[in-house]
Amino acid sequence: MFHLNISKSTLQRLPLYLNYLKSVRDKYVNISATIIADALKLNDVQVRKDLASVSSSGKPKVGYVTEDLIKELEDFLGYNTVNNAIIVGAGKLGKALMGYSGFKEYGLNILMAFDSDPKVIDEAERIMPIEKLPEFCRKMNIKIGIITVPAQNAQEVCDLLVESGVLAIWNFAPVHLRVPEDILVQNENMAAALAVLSNHLAEKLK
Amino acid sequence: MFHLNISKSTLQRLPLYLNYLKSVRDKYVNISATIIADALKLNDVQVRKDLASVSSSGKPKVGYVTEDLIKELEDFLGYNTVNNAIIVGAGKLGKALMGYSGFKEYGLNILMAFDSDPKVIDEAERIMPIEKLPEFCRKMNIKIGIITVPAQNAQEVCDLLVESGVLAIWNFAPVHLRVPEDILVQNENMAAALAVLSNHLAEKLK
Repeated sequence: MFHLNISKSTLQRLPLYLNYLKSVRDKYVNISATIIADALKLNDVQVRKDLASVSSSGKPKVGYVTEDLIKELEDFLGYNTVNNAIIVGAGKLGKALMGYSGFKEYGLNILMAFDSDPKVIDEAERIMPIEKLPEFCRKMNIKIGIITVPAQNAQEVCDLLVESGVLAIWNFAPVHLRVPEDILVQNENMAAALAVLSNHLAEKLK
Repeated sequence: MFHLNISKSTLQRLPLYLNYLKSVRDKYVNISATIIADALKLNDVQVRKDLASVSSSGKPKVGYVTEDLIKELEDFLGYNTVNNAIIVGAGKLGKALMGYSGFKEYGLNILMAFDSDPKVIDEAERIMPIEKLPEFCRKMNIKIGIITVPAQNAQEVCDLLVESGVLAIWNFAPVHLRVPEDILVQNENMAAALAVLSNHLAEKLK
């Protein structure tokens, strides 16, 4: 596994390639960037460049051994490495994410949720009081924090996660978070997504 | 409510403004674009322009009446209009989204899920066979479809939704969907988000 300074847009296309390769693994023993590009309606120069940043096993005219490339993509994307994570905010969205076991296939293992409301704390349900977050993160070496608290509490929670050693934050609160330079924030703005959908409908239906 | 040809990036910022305004509605009777821009660390020219596309009630020196602007943003974003939607794919993610009642505050009402696997069909749980989708969409005038099927089935499901009258698609499958020009696809690529997080960790921890 080698990690160059790969661009975010390349990184976001890699799961598309992986999915496609898995769907055709029985059909192609070897596969070329051109076939992948055609199937996904992408530019083949771009696909070639993206794959070159993940694998050096491609050969002219032959392409890649499909199974090898699948393995290289999975390794690169960290799907074969388990990343433990915690959630802050055990509301509806937090609980939905905790209950979604599909993240495991991407290597994401959500160990615990934390909340500031004493009424929702329930260790049997893996929901602990927020006061215990820093100790838990340090003890379990947690590097990924998922924020599902209301917008007005998100910055405070973000600061607490950073102080507790978290390096990457998956933010579902509809706010812009301020973080130190070496911390990554990946925003998942459901409200913004719904705004785009709803505006399109209003345009079409007026 | 007036819908100009508003840009997608403006549209994605509007929920941020709305959230902020709701958090300060008790503090400010009137509010200016400058105060909003400072609080959200955005450029104030941009905020002024974004708000002008939603409201014409801003006055020089006074700014906006906070409650009026909240109402205008909510109307514009369609939060006061109920949009009925369906989900295709009653797996883990589909069920998690169905169980998440938080979408209602954004005006999204998920009526039903559809699946091709007879084993998961359960009308009491609001999961119907995929064969019934076209009739249901037409009868209930469904314009929003949410795709949570595996990547390899997503295009087929997308085509079925479009044939059934859906105009806006919220796609959680990690594939690029091909649609007619007047159909909007909003991609929510969890795998890509996780790839970005995981790669950042691999970089930081190596």
